[in-house]
Amino acid sequence: MSLFHAWAAQSAGGPLQLFDYDPGPLDAEDVEIQVEHCGICHSDLAMIDSEWGATSYPVVPGHEVVGRVVAVGPQVKGLQVGQRVGVGWHTKSCMHCRACIGGEQHLCAKRQPTIVGRHGGFADRLRSHWAWALPIPDALDPASVGPLMCGGITVFSPLVIHEVTPLQRIGVVGIGGLGHLAVKFARAWGCEVTAFTSSPSKRDEALALGAHRTASSIDRDDMKRIAGSIDFLIVTVGATLDWDGLMTTLAPKGRLHLVGVVTDGMKLRTGSLMSWQRSVSASPTGSPGTIARMLDFAARHQITAQVERFPMAKVNEAVDRLRSGKARYRVVLDA
Amino acid sequence: MSLFHAWAAQSAGGPLQLFDYDPGPLDAEDVEIQVEHCGICHSDLAMIDSEWGATSYPVVPGHEVVGRVVAVGPQVKGLQVGQRVGVGWHTKSCMHCRACIGGEQHLCAKRQPTIVGRHGGFADRLRSHWAWALPIPDALDPASVGPLMCGGITVFSPLVIHEVTPLQRIGVVGIGGLGHLAVKFARAWGCEVTAFTSSPSKRDEALALGAHRTASSIDRDDMKRIAGSIDFLIVTVGATLDWDGLMTTLAPKGRLHLVGVVTDGMKLRTGSLMSWQRSVSASPTGSPGTIARMLDFAARHQITAQVERFPMAKVNEAVDRLRSGKARYRVVLDA
Repeated sequence: MSLFHAWAAQSAGGPLQLFDYDPGPLDAEDVEIQVEHCGICHSDLAMIDSEWGATSYPVVPGHEVVGRVVAVGPQVKGLQVGQRVGVGWHTKSCMHCRACIGGEQHLCAKRQPTIVGRHGGFADRLRSHWAWALPIPDALDPASVGPLMCGGITVFSPLVIHEVTPLQRIGVVGIGGLGHLAVKFARAWGCEVTAFTSSPSKRDEALALGAHRTASSIDRDDMKRIAGSIDFLIVTVGATLDWDGLMTTLAPKGRLHLVGVVTDGMKLRTGSLMSWQRSVSASPTGSPGTIARMLDFAARHQITAQVERFPMAKVNEAVDRLRSGKARYRVVLDA
Repeated sequence: MSLFHAWAAQSAGGPLQLFDYDPGPLDAEDVEIQVEHCGICHSDLAMIDSEWGATSYPVVPGHEVVGRVVAVGPQVKGLQVGQRVGVGWHTKSCMHCRACIGGEQHLCAKRQPTIVGRHGGFADRLRSHWAWALPIPDALDPASVGPLMCGGITVFSPLVIHEVTPLQRIGVVGIGGLGHLAVKFARAWGCEVTAFTSSPSKRDEALALGAHRTASSIDRDDMKRIAGSIDFLIVTVGATLDWDGLMTTLAPKGRLHLVGVVTDGMKLRTGSLMSWQRSVSASPTGSPGTIARMLDFAARHQITAQVERFPMAKVNEAVDRLRSGKARYRVVLDA
C-alpha cells in the first residue's frame, strides 16, 4: 500500500506540515486522483482554525481539486484512468435517498464534505466517489479551473435553482474569491450586473470583470441611489451587513441570497419583505449535475478564476496570502 | 349629491359611530357599490387603533366587501350596474407602471389601500376602481365570500406566486381568519396539510377544515416529531414565534412564508437556511388577476370563510367579538 503525501494542520491555526497517511483499500465506487492543482477556500481556513468547532486533527485541507484519475474502483461509472477531473466540497453522498435519486445529491442527509472527517487535496492524491469527480473540459485552463469546483458552483447554483433569467438585474456583494466569479457568471448569463464593494480599489477591477456598475454596500446614500433596482442579490460575504440598507436596493419580488454563513444570524424587518413580495434565501455548493452544467457554461464563456499560484511546498505562504485579504482573487497550489 | 352613510372611528381605539360623508363626483374609472356584506379583518382593528401610526380620523374601516354595482363611471371596463362584486385591501393602482401593466397591480408603487386615506366598507356604499372590483361567482354564498377578498387572497396568492404543486406538503401556522382559509385552499390544492396551532381546542376543528394532521408551534418536541417534513410553511400569525424551531420542520428546499407583519422583526440563523437551501419570504394580498382565479377556484371547491354574522348596526359588538379572539373564524357585517 503506497502512502498519500499530504500537508496537514496538527492543531487549531497551526502551520501545515508534511503528513503521510494510508488511505486503505480503494472503495468500489471511488476513484483515486493524482492532484495537479488545488485552490484554497475560506472554508479551508475555517477547518484549519476549527472555526466551526468540529475539526479533528490532523486535518488535510483542500477541496478545489483538479487532477488526473489514476485508479478506479470496480463499480465506478463514467470515468476512466487518465481523465482530468475536478472535486469540490463534497466527495460522497448516499446515492439512493430522495435527494440523491432526484439529482440533488448536495442535499443528501449523508453527504460527506471532502475535508470533514476525510482528507483533502493539499496532497499528492485524494479519493472521491465517481459521481462527485467531474470531468474538466479541455477548453478550461487546469490551473485556474479548480476554484470553480467550490467557489464557482456556490455562486452558479443560485442562478440555476432560482431560475434566474437574462432579464434580471443581479447584484453581487463582496468582490473576492466567490464574488469575482459571480460577476463573471452573471455577466455571461446575460444579466445587468451591479458589483457591491466597500473597497474603492476594487471598483475598476469589478468593471473589468464584467460588472456594468458598482455601488457601496456600506453607504446608505449610495444604496438609495440604486433603490429598487436589483432582482437578485448574491451576498458572498459572511459578515453581518446592513441588511435593511441592502433590502432597499431590491426591486419588487427581489431576492437576497446568501452563500456565506452569517455566524451572528440575520435580523430582518419583515415589512420590507412583505410589502414588495421579497425573499431571503441561502444555498450551499451544488449538485454534480449542476457542476457539470457549470463547467459546460464556463467552457463556452471561457470563465475560470483569476488566480495567484504557489507551489504546494509553499502552502503556508499561500495560506498566509489568502488570510491577508489581498489575493486577486483566488490562491491555487500547484502540485 | 347623496351622502354615504358609514361607521367611523373618530379617535384611536374609539367606538365606531355613524358618519355621513360626501364622496364627491364619481371618478371616470370607478364603480359605486351598494354594500351587502363586509368582513372584519385584523387590519381594520390596526387602523381603528392607529397601530401602524398613520391613521387619520375619522376612519371608516372595512375592506372585505361584497355588494352590487349601482353606478359606473364613463371609463369603467367589464362591469355593469347590478353585478355582484367583491373589493379587498386595494381599490386603486396607477394601471400604467411596469407592475400594473405586468398584471401585478398589488405591487404598484401608487397602490391605494381601501381604508388608508379613503373610506371603506363599514358603510352603505363605497367606491373602487373597476379593476379592483371583482365579479363574485354565483356559486359562492355572498355572506361568507367577503373574507376571501383580503384574508383569502393573502393566503391564496403565495400558492400562486411560489408555484406550489400538489406534491408539496403545506404547513399553516395559526388557525384563525387567514389560517382556516389557508387550510381549506391547501387541501383543495391537493397538498398534504399540517395545521400548526398552540390551542388544543382548535386541533379537531383544523382536521375538520381539511388538515391531515396537526402540530404545536410552541412545543419543540412536537416540532421535532415532524422535522424536515414541510415544503411550504405559511405563517399567518403576526407575533414573534420560535423561528428556529419552525425552521427545523422544513424539508430541504423548504420555504417559510409570512403573511402577517412581524413588527419586532425576525432573527434568523442563516446556517439552517443555507445547509438545506431554504427560503424565507413574505407577501401582501394579491393582484386582481389572482383574486379572479382564486374566486374561480373557490367556486369549484365550494370554499368560503366560516363566519359569524352581525347586523351592521351592531358593528361595535362585532368588533369586540373579533378582538376577543374567540370568533370562528371571521366576523362579517350584514348591511
